[in-house]
Amino acid sequence: MAKKPEKLWKTPVDDALRWVRGTDLTALDQSATPGWSGKKADGEELMAARGPELAELQERLFAHGRTGGDRSVLLVLQGLDTAGKGGIVRHVVGMVDPQGVQHRGFGVPTEEERQHDYLWRVRNALPRPGYLGVFDRSHHEQVLVVRVNQLEPPETWRTHFRELNEFEAEVAASGTLIVKVALMVSADEQKARLAERLERPDKHWKYNPGDIDVRTKLPEYLAAYQEMLDRTSTEVAPWYVVPADRKWYARLAVTELLTGALRSLDLGWPPADFDVETEKARLAAS
Amino acid sequence: MAKKPEKLWKTPVDDALRWVRGTDLTALDQSATPGWSGKKADGEELMAARGPELAELQERLFAHGRTGGDRSVLLVLQGLDTAGKGGIVRHVVGMVDPQGVQHRGFGVPTEEERQHDYLWRVRNALPRPGYLGVFDRSHHEQVLVVRVNQLEPPETWRTHFRELNEFEAEVAASGTLIVKVALMVSADEQKARLAERLERPDKHWKYNPGDIDVRTKLPEYLAAYQEMLDRTSTEVAPWYVVPADRKWYARLAVTELLTGALRSLDLGWPPADFDVETEKARLAAS
Repeated sequence: MAKKPEKLWKTPVDDALRWVRGTDLTALDQSATPGWSGKKADGEELMAARGPELAELQERLFAHGRTGGDRSVLLVLQGLDTAGKGGIVRHVVGMVDPQGVQHRGFGVPTEEERQHDYLWRVRNALPRPGYLGVFDRSHHEQVLVVRVNQLEPPETWRTHFRELNEFEAEVAASGTLIVKVALMVSADEQKARLAERLERPDKHWKYNPGDIDVRTKLPEYLAAYQEMLDRTSTEVAPWYVVPADRKWYARLAVTELLTGALRSLDLGWPPADFDVETEKARLAAS
Repeated sequence: MAKKPEKLWKTPVDDALRWVRGTDLTALDQSATPGWSGKKADGEELMAARGPELAELQERLFAHGRTGGDRSVLLVLQGLDTAGKGGIVRHVVGMVDPQGVQHRGFGVPTEEERQHDYLWRVRNALPRPGYLGVFDRSHHEQVLVVRVNQLEPPETWRTHFRELNEFEAEVAASGTLIVKVALMVSADEQKARLAERLERPDKHWKYNPGDIDVRTKLPEYLAAYQEMLDRTSTEVAPWYVVPADRKWYARLAVTELLTGALRSLDLGWPPADFDVETEKARLAAS
């Protein structure tokens, strides 16, 4: 290949995917590859090449946390069933040391969780200093599934937009860099992925009859996503909308967003908090 | 290579490493490769080949947990500083989907942890059904660092052996398969690894002047390990003692122990709890 693959971003990924308030979500092409001028093979090459850098950046963050630093990163993954959240975790997050990852999936609230405010379980799962936190679904479900299924009256869920923003501002102020990714899959691609889950016995466990009910409410979900994006994409917790029909693109894009986020922390290796020469002498004598 | 690399185990790894009560720990050769007749390159080849199988076994466990199953696996890693616990997490646990891993490191107890029984924080970190739990250090520190540093009087820490066994019997009865690994590094190899941490600025954060204090107490630590192994290696929670001077061997051995543990659960893909044909029709119509 003549060009270095990273040169194939003709628009920086951050600019290509960052949500711009008021964009019409229904006009999104879920099979597009915004910003990327290369092919699938180029994307896979770049993603593989990013692995070592991503791992080192994550290790610097971890080292920072171990030596009193307060920074952490939170990757929020939202998307309908089959949008590929799990694949992002496996293939992107899987490139870094599991020791430094705090992964949490948010499903239907448990009995205990229901006895608290909806942010309670989210607060408990926030990444500690030095960690990469990964949320598979999140507090944003309060304006998605809760809204679409009318689990709360509008006068209640409407109050959540402001709460979500205040909550994230507080989390960001505590040292956590927030990267929110909405994976958008088309109705046709979703159908094909659900069909695969029904065809393959090793994928039956991933299928839920409720997935079809969600399909019948796609317009409502799109409207809910539209409002969520417009109202909760903020300076400190921006949304990135990632077309997800091409898995390789979605994984590449999240790899790049995460790499960029970690780079932006600009963390060097923590300096020794001991006298290196003294310790060398002690070690030699031990 | 003429032989398939797994044939290079001349003694099954489980037999080669499972602790036999009364064995003299001070006679252990930390640079040995028990059971393995191959070379480093063979070991690396086998470990790489195990990756996909280990990932599938872990996914079956995860699927089992998602569909009401109660099984989980807990990998307990003990070892002195530089024994390679972190490398095991990165290179062995790193081969499976981070979504299914619950990793927890146990350091000096926090203020909150100190206000509870020493098993409190351990109970809170136990793997949920379907998960692979990984403990970097564990409840066994109560008969290691606590004993060696005389943080409790002997009449107190001596009661812990029985408590540890009762606790683990209870955990095992709840569905958790426990695999306990003690990584044993020689004093010379430890010295070389600490020297590297002092040489390389990107490793300074891993160095702690207290590591030298531990070195001065190696005989006491060995005695504590000996008694811990003899008294807490049980049918339901056996200890495997892994010579750890050769990192490739330690990683291979833990890969094999973990693969064997997951295989022994004998979990198939969960059957569909819905009618597949009905769902295909619903999907087609959606």
